[in-house]
Amino acid sequence: MKGKAAHSEMKTLPRVVIVGAGFGGLTAAQTLGGAAAAITVIDRSNHHTFQPLLYQVATAGLSPGEIASSIRSILRRHKNVEVLMAEVTEFDLARKVVKTADQETAQEIAYDFLILAAGASHAYFGHDEWEAFAPGLKSVEDALEIRRRILLAFELAERRAAAGGPPVPLNFIVVGAGPTGVELAGTLAEICRHALADDFRTIDPRRARIHLIEGGEHVLPSYPQDLSRSALEQLNRLGVEVLTSTMVTKVEPGAIYMGEARMEAAVILWAAGVAASPLGRKLGVAADRAGRVPVESDLSVPGHPEVFVIGDLAALKDASGKLLPGVAQVAIQEGRWVAKIIRRELEWERQGLHPVSQTATKVGRPRGTFHYHDKGSLATIGRAAAVADFGKIHISGYIAWLTWLFVHIFFLIGFQNRVLVFVQWAWSYFTYERSARLITGSTNLPGWNSSRLGEQGEAEEQEISAGAHK
Amino acid sequence: MKGKAAHSEMKTLPRVVIVGAGFGGLTAAQTLGGAAAAITVIDRSNHHTFQPLLYQVATAGLSPGEIASSIRSILRRHKNVEVLMAEVTEFDLARKVVKTADQETAQEIAYDFLILAAGASHAYFGHDEWEAFAPGLKSVEDALEIRRRILLAFELAERRAAAGGPPVPLNFIVVGAGPTGVELAGTLAEICRHALADDFRTIDPRRARIHLIEGGEHVLPSYPQDLSRSALEQLNRLGVEVLTSTMVTKVEPGAIYMGEARMEAAVILWAAGVAASPLGRKLGVAADRAGRVPVESDLSVPGHPEVFVIGDLAALKDASGKLLPGVAQVAIQEGRWVAKIIRRELEWERQGLHPVSQTATKVGRPRGTFHYHDKGSLATIGRAAAVADFGKIHISGYIAWLTWLFVHIFFLIGFQNRVLVFVQWAWSYFTYERSARLITGSTNLPGWNSSRLGEQGEAEEQEISAGAHK
Repeated sequence: MKGKAAHSEMKTLPRVVIVGAGFGGLTAAQTLGGAAAAITVIDRSNHHTFQPLLYQVATAGLSPGEIASSIRSILRRHKNVEVLMAEVTEFDLARKVVKTADQETAQEIAYDFLILAAGASHAYFGHDEWEAFAPGLKSVEDALEIRRRILLAFELAERRAAAGGPPVPLNFIVVGAGPTGVELAGTLAEICRHALADDFRTIDPRRARIHLIEGGEHVLPSYPQDLSRSALEQLNRLGVEVLTSTMVTKVEPGAIYMGEARMEAAVILWAAGVAASPLGRKLGVAADRAGRVPVESDLSVPGHPEVFVIGDLAALKDASGKLLPGVAQVAIQEGRWVAKIIRRELEWERQGLHPVSQTATKVGRPRGTFHYHDKGSLATIGRAAAVADFGKIHISGYIAWLTWLFVHIFFLIGFQNRVLVFVQWAWSYFTYERSARLITGSTNLPGWNSSRLGEQGEAEEQEISAGAHK
Repeated sequence: MKGKAAHSEMKTLPRVVIVGAGFGGLTAAQTLGGAAAAITVIDRSNHHTFQPLLYQVATAGLSPGEIASSIRSILRRHKNVEVLMAEVTEFDLARKVVKTADQETAQEIAYDFLILAAGASHAYFGHDEWEAFAPGLKSVEDALEIRRRILLAFELAERRAAAGGPPVPLNFIVVGAGPTGVELAGTLAEICRHALADDFRTIDPRRARIHLIEGGEHVLPSYPQDLSRSALEQLNRLGVEVLTSTMVTKVEPGAIYMGEARMEAAVILWAAGVAASPLGRKLGVAADRAGRVPVESDLSVPGHPEVFVIGDLAALKDASGKLLPGVAQVAIQEGRWVAKIIRRELEWERQGLHPVSQTATKVGRPRGTFHYHDKGSLATIGRAAAVADFGKIHISGYIAWLTWLFVHIFFLIGFQNRVLVFVQWAWSYFTYERSARLITGSTNLPGWNSSRLGEQGEAEEQEISAGAHK
């Protein structure tokens, strides 16, 4: 078996360890495929998630299997790459070792080069206890939990109405109007008006209210102002009620506070803050406030040219002094850049030009500076609603949406997934149908138990409207 | 809104309550669509599951969304049908009331006719504690749990091998060789030999062993003997090791006992026993040993002509005295038959021929006797391997498999699902790929924690082979 033979040979090769198989880590691994090095990709999950479409899973449009693929199968043909599903716990940069721990044993993996691409998660501004009441959207598990809550809210409302109990307020709150918040709010509005509209006999999903709450002045704050304005109009047209310049000061089960104002909701979703993976702080270098690791212009960690940080976890400024955004394109370009440096330096080493360890010093050949090539940004809002920023060209509406559609199908991993997603989208475009409306897991909706609603349901219902219109 | 107007009118109509939205309940609801009655379908899940393809979800070939559909959307166009997601807890046949309870409130729903179609689940012969170590396959949740365990076993084995720890025995045990057990074992074998074969660098999935253990003399005991023999040959060809006439006497985490012999396995799956839903016993009539309700020849409960039991929960013998099997076709035909009786009697009532309550006595018009029309049985074993029993015609191998394939695509609910499943199957036929290889939920594999394997791993490994070859 050549796979196994190749593997024992790999033991003597220099080793590159890549932590995280998101866009950055995966691109680095693919770029290092076939290099004269053993590559170990470590991820705590067994699948790569196409995060830009995660909101489609959360809103019952796509199944997880259609936007996520086994990391092993993606990297299968690169025989010098091995994949470990494990949790990284620590680094020892002095000994050049990554430590993992999991169900059965702790393990140390030695590296010659390390690429840290552990990404980011949602942040609750120091209130991690809010997560239970307002889940964020970063993993397939998150998406399934959000889907469960959204669908359960309607089931609960219908059951309560049929039994003549106090009504469940069909309010949905999305906190944060970046691309994810806008996608969630827009799609939720669409579902209520169309996919679910005729499926209930007692409640009317069309009367559900979707609130999008943003602390900044504009929705899609990272976009040019004309596109932010256009996004706001498109959201309004879908029936989303947008509150800008509004800070959420407290979250409790089934309700949020904006200062004194209280707004109740069947489901609260969190799309507000981003915090870099806690692994960044374990490198032993000073991280920034969001936990990102400030890197050199070649993406290496100061003082450790054999250690790179890429993607959402890296803090790198462009020529104008602005931090590179936490988007897939940045991670992909960084992954490719770093992998090419490593390939080149391993080749020099093989030719005896200089040992790998000396790449640490700047006496080796210079690596140059990473430059991000911005291909543009796309944000979708709903059916036939999107904005696209291609530098000088700004597009809104149907054409932006079509562009978004084809870009996302094109970049999905796996030909089969592209076909499946295309079929689903074509189908739901013509029928308004959502095909993955499954509630799995618990059938309880947090914050909506009997004691609370039996007694206070009516009163709280009134408070909501007050909160929303303040 | 005509939907809502129709609904208030429904309050005065006679009410048919259907408990369970499997094949039987759903068919009954569809047949009663448009009747002059209000239909309430109650299910504790929000989706109808196409159970014959559940093993494909468990083995990472299909996503849950592709074989399960929202009950509401299936029944949407029948405006006299409402759906409640709730757990039925009790019946009061004297007061003609169904009781439900859930997160917030208990509720009573009055009926004029009741159809109980609550199905069956797996049975552990009085050892319910085995379920945690050997899950069965009846729901989408079960399938996801089995998928998680199968995929985790390989991840754990690879990680352990890479770390130089004691090997994880790549043994899989399937208990019970009815159609579900045969499907699971055959597909597992296929996955190990093909889909996963090249994805690991340290372990070799091809060396995994699949054991299928059956208490009876033959695999597929309900099939004619020539087809059982053919199924056995096809299983052997796929590399499944079959033990017949072997009773499993005990299950513990990671191991089973067959009398004195002990066999260890990374994953144990249970496809042995079937127990009818506990709701059957709540009707207050004597159930049989498996919890099924003996029904009259018109599928009504003795003494309660307004209450019907259909599907896996009903015990009805055919002309030759054999119990009708627990398969989809029986449930579907029973659902249609019962719904037609109800439609007819509601119509008589409307015409004043006799009141509904009198259909209880046999003085009304006779209902006749339900006859099951057996269209044949199909069981798949793996890629291009299946058996088909069409009475006098018995088919095995490729043709049987093709028949199975087209029948299952044809009967899937929803045109879109048919397209998606067809794409997936065509793709995996040509590439041997499984596209839904996601581990979601906990990353711990029950029975394989550190303490156990650190100390006893080696010793136990040897026991396995002894057990398997006894």
